[in-house]
Amino acid sequence: MAYHLAPLQNLIDQFERMQGIGHKTAQRMAFYVLGLSDEEATAFSQAITDAHTKIKQCKICCDLADDELCPICKDEKRDRSVICVVEDPRDVYAIERTHEFKGVYHVLHGAISPMDNIGPEQIRIKELLARLGDGEVAEVIMATNPTVEGEATAMYISRLLKPMGITVSRLAYGVPVGADLEYADEVTLSRAIEGRSLI
Amino acid sequence: MAYHLAPLQNLIDQFERMQGIGHKTAQRMAFYVLGLSDEEATAFSQAITDAHTKIKQCKICCDLADDELCPICKDEKRDRSVICVVEDPRDVYAIERTHEFKGVYHVLHGAISPMDNIGPEQIRIKELLARLGDGEVAEVIMATNPTVEGEATAMYISRLLKPMGITVSRLAYGVPVGADLEYADEVTLSRAIEGRSLI
Repeated sequence: MAYHLAPLQNLIDQFERMQGIGHKTAQRMAFYVLGLSDEEATAFSQAITDAHTKIKQCKICCDLADDELCPICKDEKRDRSVICVVEDPRDVYAIERTHEFKGVYHVLHGAISPMDNIGPEQIRIKELLARLGDGEVAEVIMATNPTVEGEATAMYISRLLKPMGITVSRLAYGVPVGADLEYADEVTLSRAIEGRSLI
Repeated sequence: MAYHLAPLQNLIDQFERMQGIGHKTAQRMAFYVLGLSDEEATAFSQAITDAHTKIKQCKICCDLADDELCPICKDEKRDRSVICVVEDPRDVYAIERTHEFKGVYHVLHGAISPMDNIGPEQIRIKELLARLGDGEVAEVIMATNPTVEGEATAMYISRLLKPMGITVSRLAYGVPVGADLEYADEVTLSRAIEGRSLI
């Protein structure tokens, strides 16, 4: 018997399919499930079904939502004249954690990447343009990742929006707070010099 | 909105409860679930329920089983006169991978550890003794972990079995194959010298 029992092997396979989870970790996770009480195992299984069925995309910003609209789009206090464009729902949470941004978001669900066959039609650019028609939006902040794909996406969208008279801005590049200047790469450092501000 | 949507947060919490899974990994895993198709999510949820409900303990060796008996205890070709005693079902898989051992197993589900309030009654020693009554068993190999608890458990069981006329052996200690002698700790190295064999 070189293999696990079928139901156990199946569960290990399920865990192993996740990115960054190796065989040993998947096995440890499956044994964790075996060690749960009946109620705990049911709750775990239910949590997966619930997360998958109850979470949809917000009709406005394409962020995750458990209703027609996401909590941010529903919030009357958010400033609808500023839209922050991000690649992924996780980026929304990252920015929300700063408690600095009071506007609304737009989630692209990806970035333009010809290498992976992802063009402008494969991400939620159409949905973003649909939000800009009524003239309520004054500024769009591009907060795509500082990668080649993120940059290309930001450039592509900014070229579409500028003729519409909308201010398009980009997150500042620079040295991360708390990091050591010595270890900053050349590109980051030259962007930090370029974007220097008066004190 | 500093927190995730309730169904998502619940799923993250479920993953985070696993040993060795931090918040970032749990979040990544939950987002992986959101990205699954309906069928995949159902299969994942079902795999958890299945593994938990279908896997029981073998009536003979206390290893995991999806039936009354585990595949090894069912196997007519296994040598029932040699029992290998391990702490955990994972250890059975580890030994099976060597394809060296043709006997049967006994899974203790733990080791004696007074620090954690685990005495001989909390692990499956009673079940092991019940298997030895008919005189069919000639040798018991103690393959508990090479830790203080594993050692103590092996000693405790061997003292119970010796009066019954059963040979009790222990896995060899020594330097791991492929390792560098320079980095072996003193205890392992002195056990390796002690247990040296003629070539």
